[in-house]
Amino acid sequence: MEIHRTTRALQARADALRRDGHRIGLVPTMGALHEGHLALVDAARARTDFVVVSIYVNPTQFDATSDLAAYPRTLEADLAACEARGVDAVFVPGDDDLYPAGSQTWVEAREISKPLEGASRPGHFRGVATVVTKLFLAAKPHVACFGEKDYQQLALLKRITRDLGFDIEVVGVPTVREACGLALSSRNVRLGAEARRQAPVLSRALDAAEKAVAAGEVRTEALLHLARTELAKAPLARPDYAELRCAASLSPLGECLDRPAVLALAVFFPAADGDDVRLIDNRVLETSPS
Amino acid sequence: MEIHRTTRALQARADALRRDGHRIGLVPTMGALHEGHLALVDAARARTDFVVVSIYVNPTQFDATSDLAAYPRTLEADLAACEARGVDAVFVPGDDDLYPAGSQTWVEAREISKPLEGASRPGHFRGVATVVTKLFLAAKPHVACFGEKDYQQLALLKRITRDLGFDIEVVGVPTVREACGLALSSRNVRLGAEARRQAPVLSRALDAAEKAVAAGEVRTEALLHLARTELAKAPLARPDYAELRCAASLSPLGECLDRPAVLALAVFFPAADGDDVRLIDNRVLETSPS
Repeated sequence: MEIHRTTRALQARADALRRDGHRIGLVPTMGALHEGHLALVDAARARTDFVVVSIYVNPTQFDATSDLAAYPRTLEADLAACEARGVDAVFVPGDDDLYPAGSQTWVEAREISKPLEGASRPGHFRGVATVVTKLFLAAKPHVACFGEKDYQQLALLKRITRDLGFDIEVVGVPTVREACGLALSSRNVRLGAEARRQAPVLSRALDAAEKAVAAGEVRTEALLHLARTELAKAPLARPDYAELRCAASLSPLGECLDRPAVLALAVFFPAADGDDVRLIDNRVLETSPS
Repeated sequence: MEIHRTTRALQARADALRRDGHRIGLVPTMGALHEGHLALVDAARARTDFVVVSIYVNPTQFDATSDLAAYPRTLEADLAACEARGVDAVFVPGDDDLYPAGSQTWVEAREISKPLEGASRPGHFRGVATVVTKLFLAAKPHVACFGEKDYQQLALLKRITRDLGFDIEVVGVPTVREACGLALSSRNVRLGAEARRQAPVLSRALDAAEKAVAAGEVRTEALLHLARTELAKAPLARPDYAELRCAASLSPLGECLDRPAVLALAVFFPAADGDDVRLIDNRVLETSPS
């Protein structure tokens, strides 16, 4: 498995691969790899013949320095996991490489960055859009895979790819879950024991709304009420938001589920270290065609 | 000469050229081509073996709709000029191609966009940075050539290229001038007859400052006073700004010319059509090594 530490080195490799007719798949990560990331690797492998995993904890997408400092860093285990999964190259850039001295350039998609995570985490998506643009330019992929767990991030990156004209297929990969329903996340390891027991309440809230839609419920307020009621059953859960929005644009819905919508949840739980952990999850809800 | 009208078509061509080992040079223009643009073509030709000229009047870099509407459009003559100069391909995208429905993505370099043109034309450089990013992604050039006449634009694009990690050499090409010293500009044709006679005052103001530096003047206020005094000799000239700034970062200078600096001028003249024409010019001033 190749390890590249600079944009220039990875670009030279990508140019050579493209000259030889290879197709490159990119899986951008912040490390602390779990089975959810490895499902992205599999998705990239299914579509390309050279899979690059980038591992970079991007400082500009963290609004709180405490969250940045607490973000788990497990590089050796990550490299072993990549190697075992058949990754062809890992890109481990330094801060100076992705943000050279005097850096001042930002990529932003305005409307799609405003609600949900964007409202709770100012500057988060500007950081994501900027670093992913840099990773796209470094790895020159044909395909890039992102988890559906970060639904808004996926929608943002599809928007940016289209707006700027990147000839990259952005693929969303279904969320990998524990048997209890909890979506895999690098932040799960920070949960206290009791918080960990209660954390599956997010997926139960999503299930409740999904079942209601299957049973014919189309009123957005009723669906949100169901989800919030479910969340309230977990005493350690402090909801940040629970919202239903247009699945494509993330604009607000009217009174009814008149188009595919995403139910998005963000919930705080107490961390083992005394701080808070913020978990997110989502489900796309669609009325079945009549 | 090839003509490409969509990003997808140009990307496919660029991929094929790169696979075959060619080097691509890009000259982004807004059309109304003059000898200044053709000097960019020559510079690209000297560095690459496939020269692409893009012709696109980018609406997002115009702050005044009157300026956008008045911008000269001479596509047939432009294509003939490109063909005569040995251009390999012209890229003529439509608005829908570069700004697809729902577009909301912007590229911005903050500090370098603020002074000079950025202060006079809000949003201008955000438009420039965004469209040039799209043109870079469409043409996939090894080299891109821009005129030194638009000094701040050149500095901005060098900054963005470095910050985002584009593996593109951004080349600045010396300004082409009339015998009288007037910098070639697509806007010159809009000048009234008497304004056209007075317009060389910009280059005379730059000459005056340059001569003073050669004679040992290092005080920034004295140099600016010289330039402003020269501009005042043209009764139709209404200066917008005359500033001396660090040539690399465009940050303000102190009292002395202690590093390479750019003297940048913007001046309004009456247009033949009754509106105003705004001309810019600049000169890099350096004290000779002692």
